[in-house]
Amino acid sequence: MRVLGVDPGLTRCGIGVVDGVAGRPLTMTGVGVVRTPADAEIPDRLVLIERGIEEWLDTHRPEAVAVERVFSQHNVRTVMGTAQASAVAMLCAARRGLPVALHTPSEVKAAVTGSGRAEKAQVGAMVTRLLRLEAPPKPADAADALALAICHIWRAPVQQRLNRLQQAHAAHAAHAPRRPTGQGAAQAAPAAGTVRAPKGNNR
Amino acid sequence: MRVLGVDPGLTRCGIGVVDGVAGRPLTMTGVGVVRTPADAEIPDRLVLIERGIEEWLDTHRPEAVAVERVFSQHNVRTVMGTAQASAVAMLCAARRGLPVALHTPSEVKAAVTGSGRAEKAQVGAMVTRLLRLEAPPKPADAADALALAICHIWRAPVQQRLNRLQQAHAAHAAHAPRRPTGQGAAQAAPAAGTVRAPKGNNR
Repeated sequence: MRVLGVDPGLTRCGIGVVDGVAGRPLTMTGVGVVRTPADAEIPDRLVLIERGIEEWLDTHRPEAVAVERVFSQHNVRTVMGTAQASAVAMLCAARRGLPVALHTPSEVKAAVTGSGRAEKAQVGAMVTRLLRLEAPPKPADAADALALAICHIWRAPVQQRLNRLQQAHAAHAAHAPRRPTGQGAAQAAPAAGTVRAPKGNNR
Repeated sequence: MRVLGVDPGLTRCGIGVVDGVAGRPLTMTGVGVVRTPADAEIPDRLVLIERGIEEWLDTHRPEAVAVERVFSQHNVRTVMGTAQASAVAMLCAARRGLPVALHTPSEVKAAVTGSGRAEKAQVGAMVTRLLRLEAPPKPADAADALALAICHIWRAPVQQRLNRLQQAHAAHAAHAPRRPTGQGAAQAAPAAGTVRAPKGNNR
């Protein structure tokens, strides 16, 4: 499985490509940054980001794209730019029919370091070790993009199991009678909070 | 001048196309909404928005695109979607080399109603009157998109004058000596906050 991770930003979009499956050693096949000049107009910067991401997709042909999920609890100005850059990344991937997954920063940190509150340096160190690199990738956005791709590869089996469970549940619900009236159905799904008094104990 | 206005949103992107110049009656040449299903994934919704806006640009061939500037002081969830949809609109326009202008909601309200705090209904009523329509365009997003286009047409002459002034200033600055030492230069650009004592008044 080849995953392209994107750490979105207007000034720097970190990009990292990782090959592998969960439980096996991973390989980095590419890492870099798409930059746009801070003094350019936002529409032009979005065009440059689109062009940059398209080049990465053309060159590396990933099977999935993982993008950092943007929250607005941080700095307001930064968040708008991050949301716009992430929109371009999602658009480029979805337009090609590639599955796009969004992972939160703490999901990514937890996946690669074991702690959702890990420091940037710790993420960089773990990425370096997991991909057997000689030094942590720089800038930090590039290391974060690799961490996103690793997180996606490791979470993929869990996600697939969840999807299968949901599908099985949906299929079961479609076949099951809407309002169970028989004893068997009632036993299989007792109403929450009901207590059955033991027989012969009606005081 | 033909302007396409976009009131961005993930669920509904209002689109309005207006022909005209400042000081002359305006004509509506198109109005509508690009919709995406609320239960679809965000990357797929962005692809649908891109497709919809491209169709509008192909059909109406505007000379400029005006997009509502997104602020994050409102509802956090909505703002992220609005930022993402506006990114797609800006991208589509800039990719074609079209000038993109961002106007704030209060600039638009002030332009069409005279008040930056006007109600939605008032904006709709003025758009109806200015474009000589039989009824206010619905939904409100479509009316807002027309108001954006009108705002842009009316502000364009002011903006052009400002740009010319800036260019003239830049050209002047490029020709002027970097550190004025002569008396003439000093008089032309007195330092802010300096006060010249009148001659013979040195107490």
